[in-house]
Amino acid sequence: MAKKLIIIGGGFAGLNLAKHIDKKMWDVSIIDRNNYHSFPPLFYQVASSGLEPASISFPLRRELNGRRYRGVDYHMGAVRIIDVATQTVSTQYEMLHYDTLVIAAGTTNNYFGIADLEKHVFTLKSVPEAIRCRNEVLDRLERAAMCTDPERRRSLLTFVVVGGGPAGVEIAGALGEMKRYVIKREYRNISPDEVRVIIVEGTDALLRAMGPRSGRDALEGLRQLCVDVQLGKTMKSYADRRLTFSDGSSIDTDTVIWTAGVTGVSFEFAGATISPGHGNRLVTDAFNRVAGTDNVYAIGDIALMSTAQYPHGHPQVAQVALQQGRNLADNLNHPERELRAFEYRDKGTMATIGRNRAVVDMGHMHMSGRAAWWTWLFVHLMSILGMRNRTVVLINWMWNYFTFSTGLRLIMRPRRYPLREHWAE
Amino acid sequence: MAKKLIIIGGGFAGLNLAKHIDKKMWDVSIIDRNNYHSFPPLFYQVASSGLEPASISFPLRRELNGRRYRGVDYHMGAVRIIDVATQTVSTQYEMLHYDTLVIAAGTTNNYFGIADLEKHVFTLKSVPEAIRCRNEVLDRLERAAMCTDPERRRSLLTFVVVGGGPAGVEIAGALGEMKRYVIKREYRNISPDEVRVIIVEGTDALLRAMGPRSGRDALEGLRQLCVDVQLGKTMKSYADRRLTFSDGSSIDTDTVIWTAGVTGVSFEFAGATISPGHGNRLVTDAFNRVAGTDNVYAIGDIALMSTAQYPHGHPQVAQVALQQGRNLADNLNHPERELRAFEYRDKGTMATIGRNRAVVDMGHMHMSGRAAWWTWLFVHLMSILGMRNRTVVLINWMWNYFTFSTGLRLIMRPRRYPLREHWAE
Repeated sequence: MAKKLIIIGGGFAGLNLAKHIDKKMWDVSIIDRNNYHSFPPLFYQVASSGLEPASISFPLRRELNGRRYRGVDYHMGAVRIIDVATQTVSTQYEMLHYDTLVIAAGTTNNYFGIADLEKHVFTLKSVPEAIRCRNEVLDRLERAAMCTDPERRRSLLTFVVVGGGPAGVEIAGALGEMKRYVIKREYRNISPDEVRVIIVEGTDALLRAMGPRSGRDALEGLRQLCVDVQLGKTMKSYADRRLTFSDGSSIDTDTVIWTAGVTGVSFEFAGATISPGHGNRLVTDAFNRVAGTDNVYAIGDIALMSTAQYPHGHPQVAQVALQQGRNLADNLNHPERELRAFEYRDKGTMATIGRNRAVVDMGHMHMSGRAAWWTWLFVHLMSILGMRNRTVVLINWMWNYFTFSTGLRLIMRPRRYPLREHWAE
Repeated sequence: MAKKLIIIGGGFAGLNLAKHIDKKMWDVSIIDRNNYHSFPPLFYQVASSGLEPASISFPLRRELNGRRYRGVDYHMGAVRIIDVATQTVSTQYEMLHYDTLVIAAGTTNNYFGIADLEKHVFTLKSVPEAIRCRNEVLDRLERAAMCTDPERRRSLLTFVVVGGGPAGVEIAGALGEMKRYVIKREYRNISPDEVRVIIVEGTDALLRAMGPRSGRDALEGLRQLCVDVQLGKTMKSYADRRLTFSDGSSIDTDTVIWTAGVTGVSFEFAGATISPGHGNRLVTDAFNRVAGTDNVYAIGDIALMSTAQYPHGHPQVAQVALQQGRNLADNLNHPERELRAFEYRDKGTMATIGRNRAVVDMGHMHMSGRAAWWTWLFVHLMSILGMRNRTVVLINWMWNYFTFSTGLRLIMRPRRYPLREHWAE
């Protein structure tokens, strides 16, 4: 009889594992709190009104109904307790037994313990967070268009991005383009010069995970979009609409977009002591097995595997997740064979800054500008699941490109949520 | 100097007025609580996962930036007080002066005073309501897939639509198709036979606003989709997941979709006594002027104009709204001319029941089945604003048609709303 494999999380890592696992050998279930797989590299485009949420979200059941996944089951729920002794996981809805467990739950925002920060900033780690960011940025513009108090108006029109990684650079670039192309045409009461987009980074460079040339090109690109890049600035607090830094300086702003850190999703473990490592990631051996367990694995952003090249763990990017999913599937499919240690093949990293402007690092090669932008477009378009989504994304991108605009600037807030007790998780 | 015209509501009526009004004569502002115009005839497709919300929602500022609207300003806000004496309207954000005011705020759901009904049912009168409906229908299926208690399971898999008008028939048909085509393929723990879709109508026919043949064809079409059509049944209450009818019968269900009635949006009037008529609509003369005022007009669903043909007011449909907007624009553009009374030209009504199945009434002509369905598709596609949206809708419809599925079955609930005091309206 097939053994029971439970995968927590239907992201890049979990889904790629489910794709390559032998469905005759394993009876596979994916548990995810969301009924869709999503595509984080484009969350910033949802936040900046360039893409519909549905274009980068793929219903898991539809996907699992595809030929390569046939037989994989989906369970909605957020896993709360993992009991290593009884080999069970519990969500808010049910308890499931496993023979082998794979934790591929990814990361969430890290607020570094700054008081109440979570309540006041906008984030980009999920589609609903990106929608909220979109809603609130547009809301600020609408309020500013009606506001006559110069101080309030200045605060409403100041958008601060904290964190100079790819997500921060990409959303800052998108806001810079909005300032340049959209405000002038559509908001007759707002001058583009009134809109300030500021990106703040604690270290001395943008895109530190990429090569130094990429960081410099990103800096240059953002400055051309009139984005105010402030390096070497560490945030201290954000209260009463005032963002304060360690050096004592401050910015009054209604809108802070926080991209400064992630932390592994937390679980309550029973039956064994499992202590997460740095960044709340789960420490694994070279085969992605969680330290102190026999049949529990961690893959993707939540896994912390120390290797010669990456003593502090692999970068938390899609490629690592996909490759770890694949490698673990191969190992689980061949119990007779000696386990193969995971080896990361870095296919390159990229980030987009704006129209016709991106940076790409592949090995020792660096590209920037128009060629890098087209490369970025092509790679991302091809990575999106499904023809329907790919076509819709392409149409939106073409529309955005040729109209110098974004088509989806909707403030679409939920109505009356939550209402019933069982809607709450 | 141009006189100030304020339009409350950017729906079919308000937007068509703004399009045809002379922008040199009038300084026009549209106030709407939402920053987008939307397309109600397709709300049911959002609710049934067939279309993205963004495909049938059009940012007002983008629209107003178009050639035919140039010069019209947008103000976000929900109008609370209309002071006829000082000629001002107040939203939660600001107070605006008008020379002429047009109320085109439409209708909202009518719960006929049934206690707490609003808290327990799902509705289809706005895009966010439709998204909520989509989320909750999908949620029921996910919960049922995990549920082993037969009674709870039966309640989770029972979907009741109350109201047999076009919205009710269309959502019931879409749910019927989901039951037939989607459940079997994607939910291995649910049998299509377990899913019950019920439509309840108080009178003895569906689609009463259309001809009797349409009602019969709709009934037949829904029955072929295994939808349980219950006519002549009046709802009494819905509590503890039990829907009770006047005849004493009841249905246990977790999901009630309420399409049984609408009521005009309410305003607080100051400076004059304005008493709404039947259905909370504003009583107007033949020129859409609100009774008891000189310079306040009401157009669209909220207007109640009694004519020989329509003694109880016009039907609350898009065509009336568009034509009233146009007629009022003509009258306001030509103050020198004698006012022209509004005359409704009925271009026909239609409703879709499912794949290849719709009903169309145009004058004395009646169509049903495949030809009606293609007519429906064509008319609705052509009525959608903007090439981008039209293309995306077309792709989604083609995808849905050829895959016998819907691509957008996402449970996408907001995260942590509301957070800040000024987010609340």
